[in-house]
Amino acid sequence: MVVAAILAAGCGTRMNSEIPKVLHSLGGKSLLEHVIDSLKPLSPSRYMVIVGHQAQTIRSAMQFRPELEFVEQTEQLGTGHAIKQLLPYLQNYQGDVLVLNGDVPLISSNSILKLLKTHQQNHNAATILTARLNNPKGYGRVFCGSNNLVEQIVEDRDCNAIQRQNSLVNAGVYCFHWRKLAKILPDLQLNHAQDEYYITDAVTQVVPSMSVDIEDYQEILGVNNRIQLASAYKVLQNRIREKWMMAGVTLIDPSSITIDETVELHIGSVIEPQTHLRGNTLIESGCRIGPGSLIENSQIGKNVTVQYSVITDSSVSDCTRIGPYAHLRGCVNVGENCRVGNFVELKNTQLGNYSNVAHLSYLGDTVAGDQINIGAGTITANYDGVNKHKTIIGNRIKTGSNSVLVAPVRLGDDVYVAAGSTVTGDVPNDSLVIARARQIVKPGWRMKKE
Amino acid sequence: MVVAAILAAGCGTRMNSEIPKVLHSLGGKSLLEHVIDSLKPLSPSRYMVIVGHQAQTIRSAMQFRPELEFVEQTEQLGTGHAIKQLLPYLQNYQGDVLVLNGDVPLISSNSILKLLKTHQQNHNAATILTARLNNPKGYGRVFCGSNNLVEQIVEDRDCNAIQRQNSLVNAGVYCFHWRKLAKILPDLQLNHAQDEYYITDAVTQVVPSMSVDIEDYQEILGVNNRIQLASAYKVLQNRIREKWMMAGVTLIDPSSITIDETVELHIGSVIEPQTHLRGNTLIESGCRIGPGSLIENSQIGKNVTVQYSVITDSSVSDCTRIGPYAHLRGCVNVGENCRVGNFVELKNTQLGNYSNVAHLSYLGDTVAGDQINIGAGTITANYDGVNKHKTIIGNRIKTGSNSVLVAPVRLGDDVYVAAGSTVTGDVPNDSLVIARARQIVKPGWRMKKE
Amino acid sequence: MVVAAILAAGCGTRMNSEIPKVLHSLGGKSLLEHVIDSLKPLSPSRYMVIVGHQAQTIRSAMQFRPELEFVEQTEQLGTGHAIKQLLPYLQNYQGDVLVLNGDVPLISSNSILKLLKTHQQNHNAATILTARLNNPKGYGRVFCGSNNLVEQIVEDRDCNAIQRQNSLVNAGVYCFHWRKLAKILPDLQLNHAQDEYYITDAVTQVVPSMSVDIEDYQEILGVNNRIQLASAYKVLQNRIREKWMMAGVTLIDPSSITIDETVELHIGSVIEPQTHLRGNTLIESGCRIGPGSLIENSQIGKNVTVQYSVITDSSVSDCTRIGPYAHLRGCVNVGENCRVGNFVELKNTQLGNYSNVAHLSYLGDTVAGDQINIGAGTITANYDGVNKHKTIIGNRIKTGSNSVLVAPVRLGDDVYVAAGSTVTGDVPNDSLVIARARQIVKPGWRMKKE
Repeated sequence: MVVAAILAAGCGTRMNSEIPKVLHSLGGKSLLEHVIDSLKPLSPSRYMVIVGHQAQTIRSAMQFRPELEFVEQTEQLGTGHAIKQLLPYLQNYQGDVLVLNGDVPLISSNSILKLLKTHQQNHNAATILTARLNNPKGYGRVFCGSNNLVEQIVEDRDCNAIQRQNSLVNAGVYCFHWRKLAKILPDLQLNHAQDEYYITDAVTQVVPSMSVDIEDYQEILGVNNRIQLASAYKVLQNRIREKWMMAGVTLIDPSSITIDETVELHIGSVIEPQTHLRGNTLIESGCRIGPGSLIENSQIGKNVTVQYSVITDSSVSDCTRIGPYAHLRGCVNVGENCRVGNFVELKNTQLGNYSNVAHLSYLGDTVAGDQINIGAGTITANYDGVNKHKTIIGNRIKTGSNSVLVAPVRLGDDVYVAAGSTVTGDVPNDSLVIARARQIVKPGWRMKKE
Repeated sequence: MVVAAILAAGCGTRMNSEIPKVLHSLGGKSLLEHVIDSLKPLSPSRYMVIVGHQAQTIRSAMQFRPELEFVEQTEQLGTGHAIKQLLPYLQNYQGDVLVLNGDVPLISSNSILKLLKTHQQNHNAATILTARLNNPKGYGRVFCGSNNLVEQIVEDRDCNAIQRQNSLVNAGVYCFHWRKLAKILPDLQLNHAQDEYYITDAVTQVVPSMSVDIEDYQEILGVNNRIQLASAYKVLQNRIREKWMMAGVTLIDPSSITIDETVELHIGSVIEPQTHLRGNTLIESGCRIGPGSLIENSQIGKNVTVQYSVITDSSVSDCTRIGPYAHLRGCVNVGENCRVGNFVELKNTQLGNYSNVAHLSYLGDTVAGDQINIGAGTITANYDGVNKHKTIIGNRIKTGSNSVLVAPVRLGDDVYVAAGSTVTGDVPNDSLVIARARQIVKPGWRMKKE
Repeated sequence: MVVAAILAAGCGTRMNSEIPKVLHSLGGKSLLEHVIDSLKPLSPSRYMVIVGHQAQTIRSAMQFRPELEFVEQTEQLGTGHAIKQLLPYLQNYQGDVLVLNGDVPLISSNSILKLLKTHQQNHNAATILTARLNNPKGYGRVFCGSNNLVEQIVEDRDCNAIQRQNSLVNAGVYCFHWRKLAKILPDLQLNHAQDEYYITDAVTQVVPSMSVDIEDYQEILGVNNRIQLASAYKVLQNRIREKWMMAGVTLIDPSSITIDETVELHIGSVIEPQTHLRGNTLIESGCRIGPGSLIENSQIGKNVTVQYSVITDSSVSDCTRIGPYAHLRGCVNVGENCRVGNFVELKNTQLGNYSNVAHLSYLGDTVAGDQINIGAGTITANYDGVNKHKTIIGNRIKTGSNSVLVAPVRLGDDVYVAAGSTVTGDVPNDSLVIARARQIVKPGWRMKKE
């Protein structure tokens, strides 16, 4: 049994931000959520988030995570003091407590599992995750004896010249046998140089205390300013990119592509440069997406091409071509073998199969059938200044260029709308509808004018 | 005289792909084509491609390369076994055979020429291309005596600890005196650990056998998965970018720009970030292209600016400005000193000199003259639902906003189309054409309505 | 008192360029201007630019910098010869002379100040800026004795094997006590290997001569070809990116974003990938800009979102949403809480608060009020082929889809323009204006046609 304790009380001054550090976003998810999600495979019995600075803001932002409990640390007196706040909440608790920092978002479930396993198999009182760094500057150093038994942990600023050469550093992730920790917590000494209580002092005061090495040192990258936030994002993106490339997706110029963790890609698709895939998005096989596209919370079928377009909250079926310069938003469903072309916006619109909206159109709140051809410049006037109205379009209709369909309006099957017409009433099947003036030519007009 | 043999029979499992590995694209050309093209300067008398997995797919994809002969290797029993398949095809051949891997696309003609020259000048039986790597892991190690005479080649997995420290690796490119090789091929021993016949065993069995060092180790980068495919693309792009920068083209943020090998750029042009130049494209001098543009199979004249636009299969003459957000496709020719502006699509259209199509237009299948001004929102209705028709526009015409030209239609010189008109018939020179209703104002309408 | 002398006479052959090397642009400013601007905090009494190749082109390009004096060096006989040209201009000058190269654009004011301070505090005759490089290849080596006193300076090509190992290199920035330098300049010896006069020979001939180490070696990166130009740009951009991240701006994928030195960003804004901010641009707090946007010489208020859009010479007020695919140019002012949407171009246009131009519109030379709703496809016909005319729009008006406002025209408050109308005359307050034909339906048209 394990309880997770996440340290999220710090001020984060170097972020220069109005929002708390742990709420900063890293690829669509806050730092704090990254840490919480890395704990999921361990199924902790409780998630205790220790908050201080902007505590209320963090609570509110995390409302959609009801599994979290918040523990207030009103004074910021160090990591040891933070953990001390758990005492009233875990009075009769007999299991282990995992301690993590809320600003170390890249830690992997595997590393935490490895820490926990070592802790439990060895019946440790404390176990600490460590990393071996080429450049350990800035990190606390961990000194071990035989069998990885921890002897000393020294903060970077407290190191002497010889200690500073030790490359084994504290990753800031700990597992404690709670009863053993709880016994010594009340007597933890203040570190006078910093006026803080260190949780690392507790690690060296309980017995046995052991270290476990992390495999990928990038996991312990902490986020203290926005340069580090960008670095963490790069590491996260590289992981995601490599995962999908190994899974059979071609990324052309991967470093220019960003993909949220929540996105799913199928084998054989090609992602072109400067493409961004976000949220709950699925790209099926055989697609070519990009360059220069943004797809968010959308489902893209097989063999679809999307070029220089923005698609949000929508779905596109197999073999359809989108773009360049299309915008689908607000619950659009495009059928199979369609073409949604240049400078076309679709909003809350259903399009059947084999249908084209190829140029300079806006369709809003529209339900359209199969095999239709929407002429260039056709617009559905769905808004009368007060309400939005629907346009219902049958199969095999064709609208001429620059026509307007004034909603609410219904066009039957096989209707032909003459170019330049403004359609204000319903049109039955098989009809031509025309609403325009006859052409008048005034010859020699230029000479008269001059 | 030299025959080229390209190994392309492997399975490429780690690509996780339905298409054969050697057909994967690297900057507009398959891996296999890269290898073949690097051989061109040597003018091989024959190109023998040894195929196995998905042999038919590779043959079909390479139909447009009639110089290739395909040799089937039905069982995959290693590189030695692959070369053995050549025996019936080269029965009386007296020259040399170059052996290359079809999945090593970055090999340069210079390196192959150097290999061949060394081979021939020294009357070698075999010559092998080698590279000295800081991290030789994964590569076969080559052990040489004096004068670069090869003594032993050991696969990475077969190396002992000392052998593993040898940093001289096998680049996988060989030249053989065919008669000497042919003599020993039938007796090549199976390597029992892998159940494969190694061509490297042949290298060490003939005399003399020599190694030649490659200058740029990046040339030997093999492509076994899509991460390596992306790495090879990066190397290729860096080569191309540096070549054009040294030739007098400014690339702003070169790492964000991709340029196919087939593209030609003239001195003094500036390529802005996130620009992609593909296929048979020429950019003349003094241009500013990008940011965010894609140009494919198109000719761009001098002093042209293109911003956030897509141009395919088209040409643009000197001093014309394109974009932002224009799309030219399907055989468009734009004259000199034109402006093709925002949200404009041109398809199969000729535009004379000093002509403007500045906003929100679609011109398709149109031939237009000089000094014309196409008003915002003007559209050629070129498609009647069945066929495409032509629009012929004279010189110095002006169309008003949101006008429609219903093709087939012909407008003479100096015609003026009134805004909002739908033009359905031909218009002679110097005429005004108007096709719209008169304006009716209903005062106080708002109050009545409410 | 200090006089600045900037060497800008070189040919720059390796740039392969028609324009002089020092005029090449690095983030919106020429190399030469970068050097001049780094001198500003020292308030030199004179700026002497020594020009030779394409002297007139440089003079013309720098006309807007009246503080510069140009000194002609008609023959290119080396740095020593260049400085000799100053003799007639500084005949009675008693102060110091700073010498810099016009093609070393990343030098910082701090480094120059440090050089000057050391020079003056030690009453040096000459002081030279040096850097310690891991790879000193290509740079002149500086040999010092105790107290950083310079003993010898040897060009890279003149170094022997031992000298070549010295990693202390000449940064090409010097400070001289002018009277002491002037005394020896006439007798400076020709370096016979190169047939040039070296200013470094002067450094070692005056006493005392001292070296000062630069902190960031990237500052001395010279630009001799366009690869180095791109490298310098990358260094410059990294400096700018890191500055803004530390100041509280989030950059998502910073390496894909470019920001001119002249841009100002406020805390808490987020810059999305592939965004370019140029010229005199300000982004206030809480904005989200990008991806894929270009903003130049524009002011963006608080909490504005801009997506896939181009904004130049314009301003956007608080809480307004722009894009995707909008283009604002030529003095546009958009009010608060507006929406300028897809495929919309605004030119020289004022838009009040709470107003929407959401789809497929072009507004040019327009003044529009508050709470208006411009329907999709609405266009102002501001150009009659000869002149541009104004459109004046009141508050709370609504235009129907595909309507045209033919300028000059004035619409009062609360006007409603029917969809598909072409408005040619003024419309009083509260009116409906309609200019379109009635709809005619021809039933069974399809069958008759077939």
